[in-house]
Amino acid sequence: MAIPAPNLTPPFNIVRLSHTELRVTDLAWSRGYYVDTLGLQVTYEDSETIYMRAMEERGHHCVILKKADVGSVGVLGFKVWSDEDLDKAEAWFKSRDLPTCWIERPFMGRVLSTRDPFGVPLEFYNQMERLEPIHQKYNLYRGVKPLRIDHFNLFSSNVDDSVKFYGDLGFRVTEYTEDAITGRTWAAWMHRKGGVHDIAFTNGTGPRLHHMAFWVPTPLNIIDLLDLMSTTGYLENVERGPGRHGISNAFFLYIRDKDGHRTEIYCSDYQTIDPDHEPIKWNLTDPQRQTLWGAPAPKSWFELGSVFEGADLVDSELKSQPIIAP
Amino acid sequence: MAIPAPNLTPPFNIVRLSHTELRVTDLAWSRGYYVDTLGLQVTYEDSETIYMRAMEERGHHCVILKKADVGSVGVLGFKVWSDEDLDKAEAWFKSRDLPTCWIERPFMGRVLSTRDPFGVPLEFYNQMERLEPIHQKYNLYRGVKPLRIDHFNLFSSNVDDSVKFYGDLGFRVTEYTEDAITGRTWAAWMHRKGGVHDIAFTNGTGPRLHHMAFWVPTPLNIIDLLDLMSTTGYLENVERGPGRHGISNAFFLYIRDKDGHRTEIYCSDYQTIDPDHEPIKWNLTDPQRQTLWGAPAPKSWFELGSVFEGADLVDSELKSQPIIAP
Amino acid sequence: MAIPAPNLTPPFNIVRLSHTELRVTDLAWSRGYYVDTLGLQVTYEDSETIYMRAMEERGHHCVILKKADVGSVGVLGFKVWSDEDLDKAEAWFKSRDLPTCWIERPFMGRVLSTRDPFGVPLEFYNQMERLEPIHQKYNLYRGVKPLRIDHFNLFSSNVDDSVKFYGDLGFRVTEYTEDAITGRTWAAWMHRKGGVHDIAFTNGTGPRLHHMAFWVPTPLNIIDLLDLMSTTGYLENVERGPGRHGISNAFFLYIRDKDGHRTEIYCSDYQTIDPDHEPIKWNLTDPQRQTLWGAPAPKSWFELGSVFEGADLVDSELKSQPIIAP
Amino acid sequence: MAIPAPNLTPPFNIVRLSHTELRVTDLAWSRGYYVDTLGLQVTYEDSETIYMRAMEERGHHCVILKKADVGSVGVLGFKVWSDEDLDKAEAWFKSRDLPTCWIERPFMGRVLSTRDPFGVPLEFYNQMERLEPIHQKYNLYRGVKPLRIDHFNLFSSNVDDSVKFYGDLGFRVTEYTEDAITGRTWAAWMHRKGGVHDIAFTNGTGPRLHHMAFWVPTPLNIIDLLDLMSTTGYLENVERGPGRHGISNAFFLYIRDKDGHRTEIYCSDYQTIDPDHEPIKWNLTDPQRQTLWGAPAPKSWFELGSVFEGADLVDSELKSQPIIAP
Repeated sequence: MAIPAPNLTPPFNIVRLSHTELRVTDLAWSRGYYVDTLGLQVTYEDSETIYMRAMEERGHHCVILKKADVGSVGVLGFKVWSDEDLDKAEAWFKSRDLPTCWIERPFMGRVLSTRDPFGVPLEFYNQMERLEPIHQKYNLYRGVKPLRIDHFNLFSSNVDDSVKFYGDLGFRVTEYTEDAITGRTWAAWMHRKGGVHDIAFTNGTGPRLHHMAFWVPTPLNIIDLLDLMSTTGYLENVERGPGRHGISNAFFLYIRDKDGHRTEIYCSDYQTIDPDHEPIKWNLTDPQRQTLWGAPAPKSWFELGSVFEGADLVDSELKSQPIIAP
Repeated sequence: MAIPAPNLTPPFNIVRLSHTELRVTDLAWSRGYYVDTLGLQVTYEDSETIYMRAMEERGHHCVILKKADVGSVGVLGFKVWSDEDLDKAEAWFKSRDLPTCWIERPFMGRVLSTRDPFGVPLEFYNQMERLEPIHQKYNLYRGVKPLRIDHFNLFSSNVDDSVKFYGDLGFRVTEYTEDAITGRTWAAWMHRKGGVHDIAFTNGTGPRLHHMAFWVPTPLNIIDLLDLMSTTGYLENVERGPGRHGISNAFFLYIRDKDGHRTEIYCSDYQTIDPDHEPIKWNLTDPQRQTLWGAPAPKSWFELGSVFEGADLVDSELKSQPIIAP
Repeated sequence: MAIPAPNLTPPFNIVRLSHTELRVTDLAWSRGYYVDTLGLQVTYEDSETIYMRAMEERGHHCVILKKADVGSVGVLGFKVWSDEDLDKAEAWFKSRDLPTCWIERPFMGRVLSTRDPFGVPLEFYNQMERLEPIHQKYNLYRGVKPLRIDHFNLFSSNVDDSVKFYGDLGFRVTEYTEDAITGRTWAAWMHRKGGVHDIAFTNGTGPRLHHMAFWVPTPLNIIDLLDLMSTTGYLENVERGPGRHGISNAFFLYIRDKDGHRTEIYCSDYQTIDPDHEPIKWNLTDPQRQTLWGAPAPKSWFELGSVFEGADLVDSELKSQPIIAP
Repeated sequence: MAIPAPNLTPPFNIVRLSHTELRVTDLAWSRGYYVDTLGLQVTYEDSETIYMRAMEERGHHCVILKKADVGSVGVLGFKVWSDEDLDKAEAWFKSRDLPTCWIERPFMGRVLSTRDPFGVPLEFYNQMERLEPIHQKYNLYRGVKPLRIDHFNLFSSNVDDSVKFYGDLGFRVTEYTEDAITGRTWAAWMHRKGGVHDIAFTNGTGPRLHHMAFWVPTPLNIIDLLDLMSTTGYLENVERGPGRHGISNAFFLYIRDKDGHRTEIYCSDYQTIDPDHEPIKWNLTDPQRQTLWGAPAPKSWFELGSVFEGADLVDSELKSQPIIAP
């Protein structure tokens, strides 16, 4: 089950990951966390929802916080190249016997709602309300100075199947971990927009969202966030890092909100835009793939994730990864 | 003469800028400058040429130094998506009555050689020899730690015409400067790969190369380079910076080699991949477009550039930019 | 007129520079500048005065803003080792026929008020109200994240005489510029606390305060301040930088407030605590002493300064420094 | 057993910590580690020893590597203010019935050899060969860009006794950890030179050297070192970090050489020069004192240290610190 060759002529043109909806149980707490501490900018809010964007984004929102009784993930959103691509998308998902419907979403044009074969709720759109640039309004920068949403990372109960499905959609693998004993893919990083990933999959009970990630300017912004969180009541929300991943070469920090939604703060990606860009293969037995510098990740990082609305969980057949050698 | 709407269905698919050939008069001196000081990696060299790549590039080279009697620029190179795009490119340039021929280039597959209407020598290819990743071989990093070639910036005697031509090829404008009196475009930044630019044009005697640019990890790498250059005999080669451009929001440094070839060291770009990404308009009278922090650029920066092999110079009709208010 | 040998047994023990009083004409504007933009912390304020400290200081204040009709500098303050040192200081200044008196100052114990022979108003104290540490209250950090006041820099009409006087008080020279033609000292940097300087002197009409300086964590904080100032109405207050001084090796930025009071933002000092630490000599003809990277300073930086309350100005005998070769 | 008041009139004047001698079993390996990887500069070497200094030091050496059959620490060295202070030091150590003798050391003037009451080998000197400044020879910077030796940290079997002894010598406490149950001091940080420490003590089997520390410019230099070490065969030598200590507010990294000698790479200290600078008290039960950001230290960090030549080990009476809550 080797990594499939990239599909350079996908059925429709996905530009990039775009947004997600997080269901949260304490909207005020989440505002303190995402807005006042991380530094996302509110673009709309009412008593039930908060829409936010990062500093260099022109689209109306990258994260929607929605008040709920239980924490979960409502949807993963992707932007497509043209309005025509939406119709192509509908046809393609229908051809795979996957559910499709057109839904209304505030601040957005036509939205195609669907699910992948594992139950992950997806939506595709071409048009979202565009806002004025704020990347040079430096008095608005706060917290970790988040510049843009970078990627989603999911637990999948069958990573080979996930890679095949998203590969068919034109996502190209940049790095992956192989279990040398079974030949199965343990984890894979796949992109549309020319970086290491728009979406990634790791073996585990799934589908669940392991994390969403934000791109920040330099490692010093991550250090600033750690100083801030650890002295303003968010110490328990720091889960892992700072460190450098072997895979993706990212300087990272992982934090988790009150509902368990995990965010990666991320910098030091690289460009992968060439159609003949070769994936990098890592062995499951190489601990440097996870932390180049050697420090192990905590158990929670391997096990915990956010469930998706309406998706049933399936255990992976592959035996669970030894925590001791991350 | 407003900025044209982006051409979202170009005649062939250009992935990104790729490489340039610099003719230099003292190959040993240039090796000390580009390899030992800036930190580019040699991938091939003989007595007449040096091929180099930056740290995250997998393609064989981004800059070729070629020994010559006079300093000049041999070519600007671009990578296309597929082999088929090369044939489409040939047809398109022929349809515009521009010269085309297929040439042999070391380390590259089929290469289409042509010129734009202003005489700039261009070449397009799909395949270049691919090399092993070195972005995690940290003992190889030197100098400014160049990660990848980022863009070309050219003097054009008619920026509106340049923008029209490259716009037809699918380059999309991200930022531009307008002369409010004449309504003419003074300068424009255009991209294919999803950043602020692959190629940019500024009003002036042209065509000439104003600079090529390299992306580096953080502003501190630029400070390190300044410290190194100013204490190892390269003080005279520092031309402008460090500073932040209003346009592009880049933290920048400009340096010039012995033959006058200018390099920008660059970080803090932003993502522009959305097809509906709106260009930012700057007024020619706003000095912050060039330096957000207010310091003027030296006269040399406005006036000097590298000539292209075989291209005749044409003066701009627009009157020269006042140096005093950059 | 060579640099005098350090006086390792001074008449009384000065610990460090401590504070200054700036007379300002628009207290509200100055609050916006020093507090909201630079990030100093208010420790007391009323309708006439604002007391401020930097983030790692425990003493009550390092800068007092005092409302006045004309901008000027009220005093330069220094902390001495013990209460007994205050009496020794009084005796010593009296022995030099310099004016002394004991004055009342809010938040301070005994304060000896005096002047140096050039008319600079000085005050010495041992005790100032001590405040709780705030260096780990990371939600208070703003602007350039000023950590501590670092030094004063003065125009002196006779630098050799200034160096002799402060040398007698135990200030030790770390770096100096010599005019090779006359053998006169053009500028000198002198310390008590083990860094490059607590006080420095440059040739020019004096006495005037050229600048006070604040220490900040990294060059990136200076870049952040530039971004903030240039987009919040303080662009005109940026005078020089960022850059690296040859002398002191500091990464610097100079800014000037509405009344012309100049502040240097400073990092990358070095330790000079050894009693046998050798001064570094620079030639007046070496432009790298002022900017290691070669960019010239603006004319204002060479000419403008703040007058001291009650001090008469004297022109220097040495001819003015050529602006063209800083 | 509270922290003693600072002794502001010590029996002789110690300027700062100065140097140490590390006995190492594989001189070539240690050269690769300290010189090629960390970036210390060799100032003398022969087949048995290597002398090194950091980038801003003018004294001949801060670390001596000496070939030996077993790893150990030969001595901790301190610089005193004047030659006369050496005689005062001899008298004072004799008055305490501690061994003293005058020894010959290469590159140094008179050297007083002695031990503290716990057996730690100490030496005091006033003069060491002075070398040319190299802090602006930027082509010499390598590895982590070490600027100067910053402090020693020791395991002590009775921290209260250690603090009393070094307090008598004029070392002043800046921060300390108290065991609330016993009222005993668990750890203390003491300085002479105006930073957080020249020497520190932690409860444990002693005397042993826990680590020596080097000051570096910014956290990014520490990240660079981690990238370098983890990709050049030194992954196993990375022990703890990067992180921020609550105590001292330092951004830190701990690494251990082949013989177990530990080095801290350190930045973000603060100024403590005021004679009335108040120590900060931490509770043993507060995990943020060790890591502000919450990540625990590995067991090795709590337990392992380097023995001193000729010093007998004594267990602490205080029960060992729980590893689980650092």
